[in-house]
Amino acid sequence: MQRRQFITATAAALTASSFPLSRTTAAPIAPLTVQQVIDALLADIPGAPFPNTVDTIKSGDPNSSVKGIVTTMFATNEIIGKTISLGANFIIAHEPTFYNHADETKWLSEDPVYRYKRDLLDKNGIVVWRFHDGIHAHKPDGVRMGVLQALGWDRYYNANDPFLVELPAPINLGQLMIHCKKSLDIGKLKFIGDPTQDCKRIVLSPGAPGGQRQIANIEKYQPDCFITGELNEWETNEYVRDARIQGRKISLIVLGHAVSEEPGLEWLVPVLKQKAPGIPVTHLPSGDPFSFI
Amino acid sequence: MQRRQFITATAAALTASSFPLSRTTAAPIAPLTVQQVIDALLADIPGAPFPNTVDTIKSGDPNSSVKGIVTTMFATNEIIGKTISLGANFIIAHEPTFYNHADETKWLSEDPVYRYKRDLLDKNGIVVWRFHDGIHAHKPDGVRMGVLQALGWDRYYNANDPFLVELPAPINLGQLMIHCKKSLDIGKLKFIGDPTQDCKRIVLSPGAPGGQRQIANIEKYQPDCFITGELNEWETNEYVRDARIQGRKISLIVLGHAVSEEPGLEWLVPVLKQKAPGIPVTHLPSGDPFSFI
Repeated sequence: MQRRQFITATAAALTASSFPLSRTTAAPIAPLTVQQVIDALLADIPGAPFPNTVDTIKSGDPNSSVKGIVTTMFATNEIIGKTISLGANFIIAHEPTFYNHADETKWLSEDPVYRYKRDLLDKNGIVVWRFHDGIHAHKPDGVRMGVLQALGWDRYYNANDPFLVELPAPINLGQLMIHCKKSLDIGKLKFIGDPTQDCKRIVLSPGAPGGQRQIANIEKYQPDCFITGELNEWETNEYVRDARIQGRKISLIVLGHAVSEEPGLEWLVPVLKQKAPGIPVTHLPSGDPFSFI
Repeated sequence: MQRRQFITATAAALTASSFPLSRTTAAPIAPLTVQQVIDALLADIPGAPFPNTVDTIKSGDPNSSVKGIVTTMFATNEIIGKTISLGANFIIAHEPTFYNHADETKWLSEDPVYRYKRDLLDKNGIVVWRFHDGIHAHKPDGVRMGVLQALGWDRYYNANDPFLVELPAPINLGQLMIHCKKSLDIGKLKFIGDPTQDCKRIVLSPGAPGGQRQIANIEKYQPDCFITGELNEWETNEYVRDARIQGRKISLIVLGHAVSEEPGLEWLVPVLKQKAPGIPVTHLPSGDPFSFI
């Protein structure tokens, strides 16, 4: 903690002085390390660095000089390959690298899929850092802002009620679903509801916030439609099924986890360009893992 | 524990003597209480009753006389209504009643959806009991057997490798998916893989067993296709994506949680008819909660 706090303070000072100076004078930009970029990002996050967080380095050396940055939802083998092709060496991923939330790898140590990925990262000197808790703790939540922008709804954002989207005029659930699919590049989504039902009051909850938080937001806002990324299939959907049989006007859209948050990693690109001037920053969507039949 | 063990012993004795006698003589059958039916079921489960289990009474009085039994995945408001129409009063559901695994209700005490369902159950004297841990602990797992039967694959069941299904001849992934959809009455399923890939060695894992168990079974059996009910979208699907980019021949089918286990509750019907002779037993599928667009 001590060391990270010191680095954060240094990075914050750099952000406030050297970076803008470099930009205005077009002087050669000093190489930045991965840790300096991380600390510059965390300098904007209230309460960061967090004592307990999944936002840790998953591979590589935080003291590496950054040649290029890729932002994405998942550092898949495909994204790692594209990162290497770009000549970049730093992947900022929102989700785990090794198939579990905490990126514990002991249980995978002999697994051939894990070992291949680990070798691919190590041999190519690729650093992967997760930016999950931090981007959500940003004011405003960077993922939320990216998704709102992609949906053309950022103008309805209200910092006092960040989950709530009040459309100026109702559209029906069918139109709403088509809008979500087009805006977020979704092949298929799942839903509960009547496509002809009017929707004006919407709660938007990307990712997989869990049943109790999803249901608490339905209770609180009583939306026409609750839009989320992923759910446990014994939780929020069953609440909505029961509510509808009871006669309540509520519908549910489940976008898919990855596609529901991907624009948040695009939102991050201009932020990174400001924090790490001169370093190429590319958003590469890791995309929807699923097909549907 | 003491009381339950005593009742279990009593129920087992009843099963072994009075019930067959009643059937052969067509004498009036003594009314059974909910608890007697539960105990008769648990008498067949190794290790039951379990000290820690979600298989508890969710509503109603275990000393009620059973008028009729309904088996289902979810005791939805719709299923409760149909149960009342049937004149039955005992629902055996595989999944939670109140939108969380432990059926904790304190957080829902003021929720109008919860209160409506609670009132509906109470006013109509409906008992709901969950049979989740028990049916899975049955030898063989009752859910697995129901699903294997629905798929026409019970003849390939091997008690030493219950997860593994070795088809006699390969079919391609596309055919396999169509077979699953038809057999299990699924509208849409999601998958990762090449529909033309041959599949012969299959691992079948209904429900939502969690990423580490799903991945461990892929590691162990190296199947052509891994079929599951539900997953966390940062776990097994990402493992399969990475494996495929690495060149491994593995595909993934995600059936949907409810539809992947519903036949297990149909499997339970003849078991219950034997345990509770003379009591009407009906399987009512609670169905797929989702539509797709």
